[in-house]
Parts: sequence; C-alpha cells; structure tokens
Amino acid sequence: MPIPFPDDSVGLVRPRTQVFEEPLALACGRSLSGYELIYETYGELNAARSNAVLICHALSGNHHAAGYHDENDRKPGWWDSCIGPGKPIDTRKFFVVALNNLGGCNGSTGPTSVNPATGTPYGADFPVVTVEDWVNSQARLADVLGIAQWAAVIGGSLGGMQALQWTISYPERVRHCIAIASAPKLSAQNIAFNEVARQAILSDPEFHGGDFQAQGVIPKRGLMLARMVGHITYLSDDSMGEKFGRELKTDKLNYDFHSVEFQVESYLRYQGEEFSGRFDANTYLLMTKALDYFDPAQAHDGDLAKTFANAQARFCLMSFTTDWRFSPARSQEIVEALISAKKSVSYLEIDAPQGHDAFLIPIPRYLRGFAGYMNRIEV
Amino acid sequence: MPIPFPDDSVGLVRPRTQVFEEPLALACGRSLSGYELIYETYGELNAARSNAVLICHALSGNHHAAGYHDENDRKPGWWDSCIGPGKPIDTRKFFVVALNNLGGCNGSTGPTSVNPATGTPYGADFPVVTVEDWVNSQARLADVLGIAQWAAVIGGSLGGMQALQWTISYPERVRHCIAIASAPKLSAQNIAFNEVARQAILSDPEFHGGDFQAQGVIPKRGLMLARMVGHITYLSDDSMGEKFGRELKTDKLNYDFHSVEFQVESYLRYQGEEFSGRFDANTYLLMTKALDYFDPAQAHDGDLAKTFANAQARFCLMSFTTDWRFSPARSQEIVEALISAKKSVSYLEIDAPQGHDAFLIPIPRYLRGFAGYMNRIEV
Repeated sequence: MPIPFPDDSVGLVRPRTQVFEEPLALACGRSLSGYELIYETYGELNAARSNAVLICHALSGNHHAAGYHDENDRKPGWWDSCIGPGKPIDTRKFFVVALNNLGGCNGSTGPTSVNPATGTPYGADFPVVTVEDWVNSQARLADVLGIAQWAAVIGGSLGGMQALQWTISYPERVRHCIAIASAPKLSAQNIAFNEVARQAILSDPEFHGGDFQAQGVIPKRGLMLARMVGHITYLSDDSMGEKFGRELKTDKLNYDFHSVEFQVESYLRYQGEEFSGRFDANTYLLMTKALDYFDPAQAHDGDLAKTFANAQARFCLMSFTTDWRFSPARSQEIVEALISAKKSVSYLEIDAPQGHDAFLIPIPRYLRGFAGYMNRIEV
Repeated sequence: MPIPFPDDSVGLVRPRTQVFEEPLALACGRSLSGYELIYETYGELNAARSNAVLICHALSGNHHAAGYHDENDRKPGWWDSCIGPGKPIDTRKFFVVALNNLGGCNGSTGPTSVNPATGTPYGADFPVVTVEDWVNSQARLADVLGIAQWAAVIGGSLGGMQALQWTISYPERVRHCIAIASAPKLSAQNIAFNEVARQAILSDPEFHGGDFQAQGVIPKRGLMLARMVGHITYLSDDSMGEKFGRELKTDKLNYDFHSVEFQVESYLRYQGEEFSGRFDANTYLLMTKALDYFDPAQAHDGDLAKTFANAQARFCLMSFTTDWRFSPARSQEIVEALISAKKSVSYLEIDAPQGHDAFLIPIPRYLRGFAGYMNRIEV
C-alpha cells in the first residue's frame, strides 16, 4: 500500500499541455510558428480570478514544482518546500501555475521536439530564447487560463529574472514580484562559468553540432562536466566543507587519476552523471544563453531605476548570505534601483550556509519571511 | 638591434640540467630509478654559501622564473616582477635557484620524458608525485649545488605549500619560509574545481588513457576546459568585472552558441587554447593531485601547530584580499598555527583586486612588504 503523502503536500498532480498555434516572435529575430507549454496547477482559481501566482523556474527546473506524479512517487516537485497548504505559497489561498519554459526538455516545445517544418527534432536549430521571450509565452498561457493579472510572479535565480521581467514587459499584469537569489544581469564571472559549461558540451564529440539526437547518442561527458562546474557554484565553500570536508572515500590514498579519493569528487561525479542522463544538452545551452543575455537595463542606458519606471508591482527581494553565484549585493542593486524608482520594495537577507541552492531549501527564517510576505498579499 | 633588457632585469639566463642517478622513493610507494631536474640560477652564491634562496613554482609554472632566454626574448620569466637587482628577491644579495618540478613538462623528468625501463614516454605511467616528493628532490638539488641551508624557500600558491613543507621535512635546512597566497590544505571546493579540470582531461577522447603522445595527438579540448575553469578561480569576480564587464565582442548579439558574445568569453577561450598548446595534460593531472594530497597536518591528528613543532625557520605569510581560491583566512590558519607553535611569523594581507593571480603582479604594497622582509634576512 502506498505511504500517504504528507499533510502539507498538494498531493497528486497531473501536468497539462497547452497548444499555441499563433506564431511567437522571438528576440533573436526568428519566430516559432507554434508551440506547446506543459504546466501544472495547484489550488483553485477563485471567482474573481485574483489569486493566481506564476512560478518561474531556474536553469534546470521544470513545471513540476510541487506534489507527486503517482501514488508511489517519493520525490515531490522541486519547490515542494515552498508550495502547499500552510507553506509560503499557500495553496489554500493561491492558485499556483508552474510551467516548463520554451526551449526546455520536460514537455514544452524545445530542442528535443519535432520541428513541424522538417519532421525531425529541432536539435541545434531550436532558436535561442530569452527571458523576455519566456515572459511573452507565459503571458499567452495566462490569457488561456483567464488570468488577466497575477497576484504574484515568483522565481529564484533565473526564475527571479523572469519575475522581474514580467513587471517591465507587462506592468499592469503583476501585483507582486518576488525575486529570490537573483541578479539584474550576470557578472563577467557568471558568464565565464556559463562559457566553460557550454564549451564542455560543444566540444563533446557526441554533441555532433547539436544534432546528437539524430545520431542516437547524447553528449554525456559534456553535460556531466557542465553540471559539475555549475554545481560548485550552487554551493558555498563552507557548505561543501561541512558536507564533505576532506573526507576520504576509502581509508587510504590511491595515488592515481581514476580512483575517487575524496567524498566531494564522488558527489560531483554522481551529480554530473545523474544530470547527464536526464537533461538535454541543447536545452542546457539555451538556458545558459538566456542567463547571459538577461540585462533589462541595457535598453535604458544601463539605468536600472529607469528600467523599472513603469512597473506597477510591489517587490519582494530575498538573498542568502553565502550565495556567491548571485550574492546579496546583486539583490541589493535591484533594491536600490527600485527605491530610486520610488517603488514599494521589501528585502530580506537570510543568513544561510547553503549558498545559491538555499532558495530551494526549507530554511526556517526564509520560509517565515516568504510566508509573511505572501500572507499580506490581498486576493 | 635587440632592445636592451630593463636595468632591473637579471638579463640573459640559461637553464641547466642536473641528472640524478640514485633512485627516489615516492609517497605513492613507487620510485623513480633516476631523474633530471632543469633549473636556473640568478645572482652569485657567496663564499659562506649562506645567501641561496629556492623558488618553488605553482601549478603551471617552471624553472624560468626571471630574465630572458635570448636577446630577442620579450617575455621574461614568470616571477620577473619579484626577482632581480633591486627587486624583493634582490639578486645583488641572493643566489636564486628556480627549478621545474618532477612531473613537469618543461625539462624536468615527467610524463613526456622517456621511461628508461620501456624506452617510450612515461605518459600515464608517470608516478603521482606529492609536495613532499618535490621537496625531497629539491633537497638533492641543494646537495649538488652545495647548499646546506637555504636563506629562504619561497613560493606562491602550490609553491607556498612546498616552502611550508621544507620547514617540516628539512627543518635545519631553511632559515626563512615565505609562503604567499597559500593554504595549509585544499578545501572541498578547491578539490571540486580540480576534479572538474581532471574530468575534462580524462574524458577527452584524445587523452587515450594518458598515452596520447604515443598516438601522436593531444587532448587539447580537455586541457582547454581545465585551464578555463582554473583561470576563473585565479581572478576575482571584481577583477573580471573591471577587465571585461559585460562588454560585447561585436556591436550586436548573435543569438547562437558558437559566436563569442562577450569579451570575457573570448579571453577565456584564448587562455584555454594558448595553454593547451604548451602544457602537458598528464602534468596538469599530476599538479592538481599534488594540490589535493597536500595536508601536512594529517600526520599530526589534523593539528597544524604540532605539524610545525620542529620547524626552525622564521615564517612570512602574505595573502590578498580578493583571493577566493586561497583566501586570507587560509593564510591566517597557518599564522595561528605558527603562533601556537611559538614560531616567529610575519603576516601581511594586501588589499588587491586581482584575486589569486595577485601574487604574480607587481602591486606596490606587496613588493614593498616582500622587499622589507627579504631585506632583513641576514646572509
């Protein structure tokens, strides 16, 4: 007999797919003639249609943000710690929508999908999509769902960038923007790490210029390396130290290059291998490019305050002390710009040892602060 | 006509090679039946043989620490900013010895050398060497040169680890130990970055299990990736930002994966490619392993103060504020241990934006502090 789901879980959920037949023009100059978005919803849309919140995912996320896909499923959605009855994004109050972004590899149209124009998978030919493109595609999903205005758009990391972009692209359609562990644009170091990840994938002989699917192979080593280097940046030096220290894998040193000497090597290899078996290499490239290109202030002479001039949302920014990928200073840049633009903004810096990954972790002060803000949203 | 060398240069230098025929037992349990060390010297050994200093190199360094190899050579040795007449390591006062470590690829016996037992290059069969092994091999070079005691052993990063190990392995043979931007052992994050670099090399199909030389190829892509990820850790986020920011390579975005969009991508690719053409992949693996394995306190229940109990040297530690590879806190661990062990220790933390690479850069306060210490050494 299946073990019952926890009381504060949204329980069994089932993804749905929405087909869009109207072409979508993209920032890169190309367009998609049609596309599908896979999404999940949790909670109920109220009669006034005023309680909908949108969850935007980060680099390797997807539409399965909370709950379980079948009765024997023991692994809930990626943000289950924050979505559910009594959790910060309380499904007794909110109607929650989570989707897989365009270019993804979990059900929305992306590189692994068949290009209707050719009858074969897009592969390397899938157009580069940006945060703006995603927000446009999400707005169409909102139209279909009858959501004229989100009570809140919420995301961490790259998801936070989408939440911010919503307030710029569709100012009248967002009442609250919650951007967690995010940044107004990547630093040179952020881009550099992405570039290493991309080069690892591009240089894998199994990548075949992005058309590996047609060859029946996957660039497993490249994806593994990309994930390994990414993973280092998601954890703090301290949290890695606490988790692994210099613990040896076996009692004695092997003095060779193939043995795993330290626990941290074993952990990274496992993370990399597991990821390379489930994620699409072209999607990984697309997601890192979306990160690199995000720079909403560019159209406003680099002035972030001007960028948010027309935003109507209230903002909540959160950051974590040991996050060195998108440090608190990056969130503070946004906070300062919003203050200059005379917007309503709350900011919470959470003392947490877990680095960038902290936004996925149920840290009590984080959950309390997050819930405190969400509870004050009127629906 | 060649342009004259700068006045504060050691000028033309010529490497020499020392052959050692006595076997060297290594920490890994294997031994080298014989080996060669290539080295350079600058300045003159005094009659009392009391003015010799040893320079230990870091991951990708070598014996060419200062001066020029021919009259048209415009690129001096890697630490020319610190070695020469009137420089911190003043060649009017000191006799400076710089060597390429065992396992290196610049002239000392290493993976590219012919294994006398087989008549073919060692390749992957070259034994893993440790910091202790290096110090033992350096001690034999000192014997040959008639140097019973170094006035100072000096190094930055991995070179600093060798300087520290000298005071433990040969306490009576070192009067001063100068360890710059170093650490008492790697953190889990440090090991993790090394592991990514190693996996990049090991997974390159051109690596051929380390025997690429026999195949007439080099694992260029793997080495390039290893160097790229390494390079990110040598620079601070700020210095990358100042150097490149988000400057675009061309006026407009290309929206593809192959074009170089940002200057930082172009810089990293150049660094990686240049390196992959001049460095040996097996040596890179060996150097990262030597870093991982360095942990002198392990033999003393992790107690660093006990580790230095028998050291007779005076110590000088230096660190740089924005170095996040071996941060000031790592140097301070050593300082604290030395204080507990009642040793003489000077410590200078230099405010510098350049990250780990700062130890190679002529930063005025660094040079002044370094020179100040060196000037007080009695010879």
